[in-house]
Amino acid sequence: MCIRDRHRARWDRASVHAILDAGWICHLGFVRDGRPVVLPTLYARRGERLYVHGSTGSRPLRAAGNPEGLPVCVTVTHVDGVVLAKSAFHHSVNHRSVVVHGTARQVTDPAERARALDALVDQAVPGRSADCRPANAREAAATAVLAIDLTEVSAKVREGGPNEEPEDLSLPHWSGVLPVLTAHGVPVPADEREAVRPVPAYLTALARG
Amino acid sequence: MCIRDRHRARWDRASVHAILDAGWICHLGFVRDGRPVVLPTLYARRGERLYVHGSTGSRPLRAAGNPEGLPVCVTVTHVDGVVLAKSAFHHSVNHRSVVVHGTARQVTDPAERARALDALVDQAVPGRSADCRPANAREAAATAVLAIDLTEVSAKVREGGPNEEPEDLSLPHWSGVLPVLTAHGVPVPADEREAVRPVPAYLTALARG
Repeated sequence: MCIRDRHRARWDRASVHAILDAGWICHLGFVRDGRPVVLPTLYARRGERLYVHGSTGSRPLRAAGNPEGLPVCVTVTHVDGVVLAKSAFHHSVNHRSVVVHGTARQVTDPAERARALDALVDQAVPGRSADCRPANAREAAATAVLAIDLTEVSAKVREGGPNEEPEDLSLPHWSGVLPVLTAHGVPVPADEREAVRPVPAYLTALARG
Repeated sequence: MCIRDRHRARWDRASVHAILDAGWICHLGFVRDGRPVVLPTLYARRGERLYVHGSTGSRPLRAAGNPEGLPVCVTVTHVDGVVLAKSAFHHSVNHRSVVVHGTARQVTDPAERARALDALVDQAVPGRSADCRPANAREAAATAVLAIDLTEVSAKVREGGPNEEPEDLSLPHWSGVLPVLTAHGVPVPADEREAVRPVPAYLTALARG
């Protein structure tokens, strides 16, 4: 499969923000004992800052509490399609991705922490943070929030059909794109008691979109 | 959002293989100049080994050519739903993920390389490697294939509805799961010439599934 393809690197804010705002799960990379660790986790963007969170007991989140913070790489990827070319080599993947290099630091300001926790809920389900019980003191104490500034950021977008070698064009193999689609299904209530409760508009909007 | 949730860690081969076989894009983590790097890339599983590939000119792939190999973390994540609880804290994500820690080494055996390249195509579109032109010598020389053995592997699965604090159950907020679905769309031919070519059965099968 081809890697020197028509990927286009983009650094403009609008492209970076659009890709980040289209998702809510990132892959967070950090170094532990000299070796890489990559974990999936929720994220939220507010302005030029990303937030992730976790248990205050977890090792990376404790490390980020040091004054120097924790070096991280945050990667967000949307897969849009498999690109099938005449040749195995020119197969590719249509996708949008953002890679953020930076230093994660624990957020200690209570107001910023509260906004970040709301943003983490709203990134996945816009409007939800206003429709649930906020964290109480015990829950807040158990949750660490990390911030990573969007300073060293790059985006990549690959779209469109296959690149072909001219001499391959007459080969009989089908070529084109197999789209990959992500969508929300119909909300499933937690139990019979919830089943009679109307589904909130912010959820039906997502399930429809 | 809750992180000490009903996630279940699984180490049995069948669970690990099922999660790996359900995907074809991983997030590959490695350390460069002491800092973490996380990149999305294709992968394939064959037995107890993962394969990734890339340009022979790329830095991580060159590093993996050293006798000691390149320490990596390969993470595969499938997101199945957003879990909406009465409290912000107990919001969660239904997902299946596998984290592989290991050392990536360049595959030099020609037969293993060829099988790995076929597997990389077939992981995304089963059956496709038999229906495209194989790599020629120049393309093969430009492609590095890395292997990572599935020795240090863990899987996590979170499924089902929200966990709630008993005192939250009477709150009016809707609770349940918003499913997240991934599917293939209708194949899009590369151009007008391809549009008259019948879509292969292995693609229509995916688009239907």
